Amino acid sequence: MKLIKNAAGRLVPGIVNNQKQIPFKGIGKHKPTGRKAKPMIKSCADFPEDGNKVVKNLKDALKKSGLKDGMTISTHHHLRNGDVVTNYLFDVIKSMGIKNIRWYPTASFPCHEHLIKYLDDGTIHHIEGSMNGPLGRYTSHGKMKGIGVLRSHGGRYQSIQDGEVHIDIAVIASPTADQFGNATGDRGPSACGLLGFALADSEYADNVIVVTDNLVEFPCYPWQIQGNNVDHVVKIDSLGDPAKIVSGTTQVTKSPDRLLIAEYVAQFLDESGIMKNGFSFQAGAGGTNLAFALYLKERMIKKNVKAKFIRGGSTKYLVEMLKEGLTEYILDGQTFDLDGVRSMRENPNHVNTSPFTSYNYHGKGNFASMVDAVVLGATEVDLNFNANVVTHSDGYLLHGIGGWQNCLFSKCTILAIPSFRDRIPVIVDEVTTLVGPGELIDVIVTERGIAINPKRKDLLKAVKGSGLPVKSINEIKKEIDDICGVPAKPKLNKDKVVAVIKWVDGTLLDSVFQVE
Amino acid sequence: MKLIKNAAGRLVPGIVNNQKQIPFKGIGKHKPTGRKAKPMIKSCADFPEDGNKVVKNLKDALKKSGLKDGMTISTHHHLRNGDVVTNYLFDVIKSMGIKNIRWYPTASFPCHEHLIKYLDDGTIHHIEGSMNGPLGRYTSHGKMKGIGVLRSHGGRYQSIQDGEVHIDIAVIASPTADQFGNATGDRGPSACGLLGFALADSEYADNVIVVTDNLVEFPCYPWQIQGNNVDHVVKIDSLGDPAKIVSGTTQVTKSPDRLLIAEYVAQFLDESGIMKNGFSFQAGAGGTNLAFALYLKERMIKKNVKAKFIRGGSTKYLVEMLKEGLTEYILDGQTFDLDGVRSMRENPNHVNTSPFTSYNYHGKGNFASMVDAVVLGATEVDLNFNANVVTHSDGYLLHGIGGWQNCLFSKCTILAIPSFRDRIPVIVDEVTTLVGPGELIDVIVTERGIAINPKRKDLLKAVKGSGLPVKSINEIKKEIDDICGVPAKPKLNKDKVVAVIKWVDGTLLDSVFQVE
Repeated sequence: MKLIKNAAGRLVPGIVNNQKQIPFKGIGKHKPTGRKAKPMIKSCADFPEDGNKVVKNLKDALKKSGLKDGMTISTHHHLRNGDVVTNYLFDVIKSMGIKNIRWYPTASFPCHEHLIKYLDDGTIHHIEGSMNGPLGRYTSHGKMKGIGVLRSHGGRYQSIQDGEVHIDIAVIASPTADQFGNATGDRGPSACGLLGFALADSEYADNVIVVTDNLVEFPCYPWQIQGNNVDHVVKIDSLGDPAKIVSGTTQVTKSPDRLLIAEYVAQFLDESGIMKNGFSFQAGAGGTNLAFALYLKERMIKKNVKAKFIRGGSTKYLVEMLKEGLTEYILDGQTFDLDGVRSMRENPNHVNTSPFTSYNYHGKGNFASMVDAVVLGATEVDLNFNANVVTHSDGYLLHGIGGWQNCLFSKCTILAIPSFRDRIPVIVDEVTTLVGPGELIDVIVTERGIAINPKRKDLLKAVKGSGLPVKSINEIKKEIDDICGVPAKPKLNKDKVVAVIKWVDGTLLDSVFQVE
Repeated sequence: MKLIKNAAGRLVPGIVNNQKQIPFKGIGKHKPTGRKAKPMIKSCADFPEDGNKVVKNLKDALKKSGLKDGMTISTHHHLRNGDVVTNYLFDVIKSMGIKNIRWYPTASFPCHEHLIKYLDDGTIHHIEGSMNGPLGRYTSHGKMKGIGVLRSHGGRYQSIQDGEVHIDIAVIASPTADQFGNATGDRGPSACGLLGFALADSEYADNVIVVTDNLVEFPCYPWQIQGNNVDHVVKIDSLGDPAKIVSGTTQVTKSPDRLLIAEYVAQFLDESGIMKNGFSFQAGAGGTNLAFALYLKERMIKKNVKAKFIRGGSTKYLVEMLKEGLTEYILDGQTFDLDGVRSMRENPNHVNTSPFTSYNYHGKGNFASMVDAVVLGATEVDLNFNANVVTHSDGYLLHGIGGWQNCLFSKCTILAIPSFRDRIPVIVDEVTTLVGPGELIDVIVTERGIAINPKRKDLLKAVKGSGLPVKSINEIKKEIDDICGVPAKPKLNKDKVVAVIKWVDGTLLDSVFQVE
């Protein structure tokens, strides 16, 4: 396979799964031309006048959708590790004797290990979407027939909108839906919060199937997915395991190192002046991030500071801040716990967003660049602040990108990371896989110190004399290397690309190679 | 001009404003093929990172949008007869020396008489959109340079979606908006309720300009129009006259005849069995319709019947029914009074809809056909139940179509009309202009009796022995003609088509001819 060196100096294939690729050109450098994808025009004359689109089962819906070999089928990770719909979907597809499906999930989870047999037997040709856990490991071993394509949430919207990926059939697992196909995730026995990741699919796919275990009378409101975009509705017994769809208990870290990192991040926002009335921030649901939110909250109360909005993924800690008036809005992309789901359902200021509003780079702006500070994780960071979030230092592809790349456009991007994990340094000479260009990453916070990107002179100045342990990234790396040593590079087969990393504009940022 | 006889037996041009037309083929007979219009792909790299899209004035926004001769510019009738934005817009366009604009409003009102001078001087080439009052009269006199094109609200969405009308610049007057272009109509000094009529424009126009007199901090929520679709934001002093944007007082009719009609309609819904638990209905804001809603409410209370949903246009009478639990939802298309606006803002069960959800015929179904009964008006009805809603019997084009054609798809379409107006019979041999094919019209209710379309044997049976004054339409016509006489047909120049009436699928249903 011929590889090309892109503007980030990384080697990427010119063609992936028979589709010509554009190598990464630099941030904001690739200017798209042309027009968006064109969904099919349909007619009400071909749909039931009473609005009832319920068909007898999923197989029937797939048949009516014209399922055939080689089609692209999309699913979504709203049900997270509790999803049974996707596994069931591919059982049905297998039973129909269909082959070579391009599976286009927003993400896959360990529960989808069930699908490895369909990758083996050719039912699924390859996966384009995040692969968390077993499917990533499978891909890393070079076993998948095609090349995996990893996109951010915004990049996925962009790829559909731009016509780069044409979805033949979208299957949207919906915790509540009506017979017309209006659907919501914020209620029902399998409530997951929202269905925003399926928005693009509902708008652009040729055939849209809503699968629900909670069929209600029209109108299902809110209609996070609009029935006007839906072809068929299927009722099944259960979408999955509620305990794994939304965890009832999100745990704040108990690790002293991670608590220290969280405290540093909060202190950084405070001392740098970012934490001020009307500010905004985003933080995920990891243990460190939850702790950060709690530390920040303390500081906000102490200084009587109120945020204009917090970007979710929401958790009970953010929901409490909303209830207590510490923020005017939560602009949420997904709800990580039951408090988040309830708040989204009941609090009008807990607002449902989508990758279109928040992350799509080929739009007229998006919300991500308006956020004052975002706190993210990473598996590796290098001395130029380039970061990796998909592979481990042993080369295995074990995580998806999620909204991570999109969030880098925040006014201040902070990576909150331990300096090493299992004695493997997190700060490295060169990242195994480049997922985030260093020029967008402003601050690295570890338990051993805080490194500020030298190009952010404003931030360096702002925290001068603050008492924060600001160091150069080289200093921090040296400290870690002195403790852990520098581990050997993983053995990768550089002739075999198993997956590629797209940048937010659809260009190729890096390749993931087979682990020997 | 060569005219073709369509499936309804009406004469329509083969070409309108240089665009080839499809003559009406019958209801549900025209099957669209192909794919939807393709909006331009844009990039966040070309929009400000802080999301601030405010430009200094409307002229600047038009320049940045590349305004030039012959472009299509859209506006919307959310501000109704209180709109000053559209007049100001064309003052600016005129000042820039631009000519031959196709003006594509959702509707025009008497306040837009100001624009006649721009039709005269060639700034505006022609209007595609409803013309209520003076502009309709102007058109009827054959003074407009091009041919007017009248579409229903759903037909307008369809025409944009299908690429039949490409909008170069959409100008969306927005009672509240943020710098990013998120906009809502449900609050602000010029609050009008909702902005659903501009949805298609925001999705498909090449350039979208939001004009507001109430610029708020991001995020403007709800975002009825999404900033992600907006190019420029313009702040002006005032969108218009609030008293004319939303009337504070909607008047129930005091006419004994019209009260009788309203009572008959309510009685009909009751006696026919349509009024039952979980039913749905739609009625407009005219005086007769308001009276109908009140009579129906009485009957609902008496029989302890609750509706599942009421379709707006909403008024304080519908809002009261929502508050009193007589309906679970109002699915609203526009708010006709201040109570409607407040309810939409405050009551989560008062739901914002759009022509996409409710009316677009080239979708995967829409809400209109799910409504149990709809009560509409008409200027004329003929013996085959064909109806007219745009011209008077004197031939003048004085009204728009609104959602009227779309509503005909209800399970029971009722025209509530006086048998004559100013001694001009409303039931005629042949309608001046065909806007609604008789096969979709089920019941005509006049003060002299109720005519049920003979094809609705079920309804005839349902009200048998009910005491309702059911008569044949011929009987009612004879009674009227005995009183009024049959007036002379208007003098129309059949060689000069001044406007055309589109059916909901984009085909040509009828022509409006010049009044001599």
